[in-house]
Amino acid sequence: MKVGVICIGDELLIGQTVNTNAAWLGQAFRKLGISVYKATTIRDVKQDIIDTVDAFFQETDLVIVTGGLGPTNDDITKATLTEYFGTSLELNKTVLAHVERFFKRRNKEMLDSNIQQAMLPKGATILHNENGTAPGMWFEQNNKTLISLPGVPYEMKSLMKDEVLPLLKSKFHVIGSFHQTVMLQGIGESFLAEKINRWEKRLYQDKLHLAYLPSPGIIKLRITSDKGIEDAGLIQSYIEEIKTDYPQYVYGLNGEDIFEVVGHLLKQNNATVGTVESCTGGGISNSFVANSGSSEYFQGGLITYSNELKHKLANVPEDILNNYGAVSEEVAKAMALGGQKVLNTDYVIAVTGIAGPNGGTEDKPVGLVWMAVATPEGVYTQHHHFGNHRGRNIEKTQLYAANFLRKLLLKIKS
Amino acid sequence: MKVGVICIGDELLIGQTVNTNAAWLGQAFRKLGISVYKATTIRDVKQDIIDTVDAFFQETDLVIVTGGLGPTNDDITKATLTEYFGTSLELNKTVLAHVERFFKRRNKEMLDSNIQQAMLPKGATILHNENGTAPGMWFEQNNKTLISLPGVPYEMKSLMKDEVLPLLKSKFHVIGSFHQTVMLQGIGESFLAEKINRWEKRLYQDKLHLAYLPSPGIIKLRITSDKGIEDAGLIQSYIEEIKTDYPQYVYGLNGEDIFEVVGHLLKQNNATVGTVESCTGGGISNSFVANSGSSEYFQGGLITYSNELKHKLANVPEDILNNYGAVSEEVAKAMALGGQKVLNTDYVIAVTGIAGPNGGTEDKPVGLVWMAVATPEGVYTQHHHFGNHRGRNIEKTQLYAANFLRKLLLKIKS
Repeated sequence: MKVGVICIGDELLIGQTVNTNAAWLGQAFRKLGISVYKATTIRDVKQDIIDTVDAFFQETDLVIVTGGLGPTNDDITKATLTEYFGTSLELNKTVLAHVERFFKRRNKEMLDSNIQQAMLPKGATILHNENGTAPGMWFEQNNKTLISLPGVPYEMKSLMKDEVLPLLKSKFHVIGSFHQTVMLQGIGESFLAEKINRWEKRLYQDKLHLAYLPSPGIIKLRITSDKGIEDAGLIQSYIEEIKTDYPQYVYGLNGEDIFEVVGHLLKQNNATVGTVESCTGGGISNSFVANSGSSEYFQGGLITYSNELKHKLANVPEDILNNYGAVSEEVAKAMALGGQKVLNTDYVIAVTGIAGPNGGTEDKPVGLVWMAVATPEGVYTQHHHFGNHRGRNIEKTQLYAANFLRKLLLKIKS
Repeated sequence: MKVGVICIGDELLIGQTVNTNAAWLGQAFRKLGISVYKATTIRDVKQDIIDTVDAFFQETDLVIVTGGLGPTNDDITKATLTEYFGTSLELNKTVLAHVERFFKRRNKEMLDSNIQQAMLPKGATILHNENGTAPGMWFEQNNKTLISLPGVPYEMKSLMKDEVLPLLKSKFHVIGSFHQTVMLQGIGESFLAEKINRWEKRLYQDKLHLAYLPSPGIIKLRITSDKGIEDAGLIQSYIEEIKTDYPQYVYGLNGEDIFEVVGHLLKQNNATVGTVESCTGGGISNSFVANSGSSEYFQGGLITYSNELKHKLANVPEDILNNYGAVSEEVAKAMALGGQKVLNTDYVIAVTGIAGPNGGTEDKPVGLVWMAVATPEGVYTQHHHFGNHRGRNIEKTQLYAANFLRKLLLKIKS
C-alpha cells in the first residue's frame, strides 16, 4: 500500500510552525511496515487542496490529510473535501452531543461555529475526536482512501491511535515490521556507536535493522525486524544484552520517561524525593510531576535561583557560597543536604550550574553544572560540561540528574 | 515570484528526522516577503526527484532542493540534477582546494568519495559551503531557477544566508507577502472569533488575510498582506486596535514568550517575582528561567506538592488546608502570601489544582485550578476549569498564571 501525507496550513509553509505531524505520521506508518511515499505541505487554498489530492490519488492508495478543520473562516478542508467527493454536509447527532459535552465540561457557551463542527459529509466514516471538536473523516472512492484529520498535533495523534490505525489494520492486510526502542541516557552517539560496534554487527547478521535517534541528553536505539512479531524473542535477547552490559545508560524501553522510571523505583523502595534547583529553575520537579501518580513519591522542592535563597531556603552556609561560588561541588552538596532536612525526604536532587548564554568565566564556563544527590546513606556528586545553549543545558541537566538518582537507587556504578 | 521547496530524504519520510529545513526556509522567504507555495518531501529515488522537479517547474519559478548531496551511495541528488539539466560533471579546483583544507583542518584523511564532492555540473553556479564539503548548485533553465543545497541544517542555513539570499535579492525584484502575528492568551479560538468578528471583516475588506493558530492556552493571529511591506502601516493599525480592545488577551507579537514579556515588565518596575507551585510542580519557575537574564527579576520558589510542604514551606495554616482542601481559593491565597514572606519578593504567583487524570471529585473535578498572585498592593485570585489531560492542564495553568501577573502589572481588568 502506498501512503501519502498532505499537510494543509499556511503556518507550515511560512515556517511559523515546524511540521512535526509529517514526521509523527512517518513513524506511525513505519511501525505498520509502510514507508510514507511522499509528504507535501500546501496552503489553505481550495484549488491547491483539490489539485494536490488529485495528484496524490494518481500515485498513492491512501492519503492522510491534516489541518484546516477548525471552526474559523480560514479552515476550508472540510468544505473542500465534501465538494471533492461530491457529497454534502449533514448534522451528525453523535458529534453534536460530543461538542455539547465538550463545552459544558469547560463551563463555556457553545457558539454557532462550534455547532458547525457537527455538520459532516454524508457517506464519510466519522472518526471520534475525544480531545477536540473537529472529528476525523474517512473517505473512500475508486479503491482510494483519504483520511482527513485535525492539524493540532495531540488531536491528530490520538485520532490516529484510537481510530485510524485500528481501522487500517482491520481493513487492509498489513504485515508490519516490529520495533523495539532502547532508551539510553548519559552517553553521546558516536561514543555509544564505538562501544556497541560488535553487538550492532551481529544484529545486522541476524537481518535486524538499527537506527540511532539522538536528542539532547537521550539516545533511542530502534531495533527493527521486517519479519514482524516473530522476531520479538530475538530482539529481546539483544535488548537484554545491552541492558546487562550498559545498565548505567539503559533506563527503559519504547519512549519511557526517565522520571517515570525513577518514580517507579522510588515507589518500590517506599521512598520519597525532593529537589533543590538552581539553574533548572524547577524543571526537575516539573518533570517528576508530569507523571500522574507522582504524589506517591514526589513531595516538593526549593527553587534557589538567587544565592540569598540558597542560604535562606536550603541553609547553604554563606561562607561556602562565598568561598567556592554558587556553581561548585561544595554548594551542590550543601543544597542537597540542606534540602533533605527542610523537605524531610529520603532523597534530594540538587543542581547548580551556568546555563548561559552569559555568566561564564574561564574557570567556570557556560555549560558547567554541579549536581548532588543526598540519600539515606550519604551524599554523592558529579559535574558535567554541557554546551553553550541555555535550553539544552537545562534539559540535559534534568536528564543527567534523573539518571544519577536512578543509578544510586539501583546501586549501579557509573 | 512563486517558490517551492523539495526536501529529499528517506529519513524525513519515515519520521526519523523532523523536517526543520522546510520551516526555516519558509521563514527565510517570508522575510523577503515571499510565501513558500508548496513544500514536498520525497525519497532518495531518481525518478521521484525528476518527476517532482518537473511538477514544481509547472507551478513555481524558483525551487529550493535540499538533501542528497553527501558522499555516500544513497546521495543521488547531484547526479540526478546534472542529468536533468542535460550537463555533465567537471572538476572544480576551488571546491577541491576547499575540501582538502576541510580535511586537513580536522586532521582526517581524505577519501575518494570526498574528492568526488569537487566534481560539479558544468554551467551551474557553484555556491561555496564553508561548513561542509558539498557545495550548493544554482541551475537556470527557461526562466526557472533551481537551487540545490545540502540537507544538514547548519550547512543549508549558512549557504542560504551567505550565498543564496544575496544572489536572489540582486537577481530578482522581490515583492511578496508580509506577515505580523498577534499573540493572545486566555481565550478560546471560537470565542475570540466571535469577539473580533467585525475587526476581521474589515481586515478582509482591506484585502488582508487572517489565520488563527491555536495551541493549548495560546492563540496566534497571523495577519498577512499580499502587497508586502507597503501594508506594514495598515497591519500595524489593526494590531493597535486589537491591543487596545483586548489588552487582557494580547501579550505580544511574532512568537514572543509570555514569560519573557512578564519578565520585561518586572524589570521595568524594578520588581522581583517568586513562585509557590503545587500542580505545576515548578513549571512556572522553569518557564521564567528558560529566558536568559531571568536572574534580574526571578528569585526562586517553593514547590509545595504535598500538603505537609504547603504548611511547612509556605506557612499555609493547617486549619485552612483542612477546612477548604488543598485546591481552594483560600489555600491559593495563603500560598501566595506565605511565599511573599519567605521568598521576600515583590510578587508571588501561587497555583494549586487537580492536574489529573485522577484525584477529581464531583465538587472539585480534574482540571480545576485555583491561582493567586500576591502583589505589593494585595492578593488576587482566579480559578479555571481546564480539561482532562494532565500535561495540557499543567501547561495551561502556567500560561494563565503568567497572564494573570501580566495583567496585574499593567493594571488591566480581565
